Amino acid sequence: MTDSPDIHSLYVNDGLSDDEIARQAARYEPLTQDLRDLILLGIQTRADDADVTEARGHLAAAREILARDKESGPFGTRFNDSGSFRTWGNAAIGLRNAVAPPLDLQVDPDGRVWADFHLHAGYEGPAGYTHGGVSALVLDQVLGDTARHAGAPGMTGTLTVRYRRPTPLGDLRAEARLDRVEGAKAFVTGFISCAGEVCVEAEGVFIAPRWMREARAAAVSEPSS
Amino acid sequence: MTDSPDIHSLYVNDGLSDDEIARQAARYEPLTQDLRDLILLGIQTRADDADVTEARGHLAAAREILARDKESGPFGTRFNDSGSFRTWGNAAIGLRNAVAPPLDLQVDPDGRVWADFHLHAGYEGPAGYTHGGVSALVLDQVLGDTARHAGAPGMTGTLTVRYRRPTPLGDLRAEARLDRVEGAKAFVTGFISCAGEVCVEAEGVFIAPRWMREARAAAVSEPSS
Repeated sequence: MTDSPDIHSLYVNDGLSDDEIARQAARYEPLTQDLRDLILLGIQTRADDADVTEARGHLAAAREILARDKESGPFGTRFNDSGSFRTWGNAAIGLRNAVAPPLDLQVDPDGRVWADFHLHAGYEGPAGYTHGGVSALVLDQVLGDTARHAGAPGMTGTLTVRYRRPTPLGDLRAEARLDRVEGAKAFVTGFISCAGEVCVEAEGVFIAPRWMREARAAAVSEPSS
Repeated sequence: MTDSPDIHSLYVNDGLSDDEIARQAARYEPLTQDLRDLILLGIQTRADDADVTEARGHLAAAREILARDKESGPFGTRFNDSGSFRTWGNAAIGLRNAVAPPLDLQVDPDGRVWADFHLHAGYEGPAGYTHGGVSALVLDQVLGDTARHAGAPGMTGTLTVRYRRPTPLGDLRAEARLDRVEGAKAFVTGFISCAGEVCVEAEGVFIAPRWMREARAAAVSEPSS
């Protein structure tokens, strides 16, 4: 396999104005939230065959409308001349991705990255608890963003997750700090807590591959189109 | 926090017949697949304001129908007198959970657990690639199920994930084997591969908490209701 099959189309300055980006966010974010509500209902509904058939008719109608004009493939990473980056398809933070809880990451002046977030019943693993892999998903994102905000962006090299106690569903916090940078590697630690008690701890090593360093350099240096 | 807030309602023999379970699966699985298609369209659609508004009207109608009669809270783990376990809300394998890819896990006679699965664009992390945390979610599930099938079920104690190369989206395989059992701990190793090349490796330690051992013992020994 190649290291990056198509970064030209997936890591791209699409030249959108900040106003157009705001319009798209206002248009698509409520649609995504509708889908999150439906994911939860897909788990919780007791609808009978007739009601499910009727509901599926409406879902088919929505699909037909949304598919009239659409892209194919993943969203990728898009940016504009203002330096606004969009990863709206991201599985943890994507504004247009109903798989994402989503996380709304905050960055403190000291480099600490954190998010208060909510996990609905669609993130279940053991009965009534958050899936261990969902905790890993959240921590991979928060630790990776901590490396990025520290100026050492990279893809995950190693992620070690220690489960200290069962993580409930519902309202949780994730938090991470950069430990150190060694060459192309950033070492980050973090945790998920519930009501002040740490449930899950993680350590991550994030490594910048050459294509990512080159794409970021190009994004900074290339003339605007 | 308590170790298990409500295992009576979340780890339960609901007394359904095998026929009724089959009817429910046939009713709700296509609904879940509709929602997966819509999640992908939520990322890919170029619909304008008018079309999004029209589509959201249909989604609201579907929500209203599905919410007429519904449960609250997570699905939990349900079983019946035939020993059929359902984790239909599970974030990795849930038949009723559109967050799940889903994984359809196979168990070989030698104890190896594996799944061929597909990740759509809603599982993206780095531009065009699978989110490192989604790989961790898949591996946590596959490794945990390997421990369970080996007779040593448990919640994840530690999960260590090593990313050997970028994992593409699309068609992937996950596979795991039990390494050993020491007391209440099961040690499992596994990987995700694409077209025969290993992209991600993982080691997991799974620990059976007392409430899980007690609930499983009760499920085996209690009279049917």
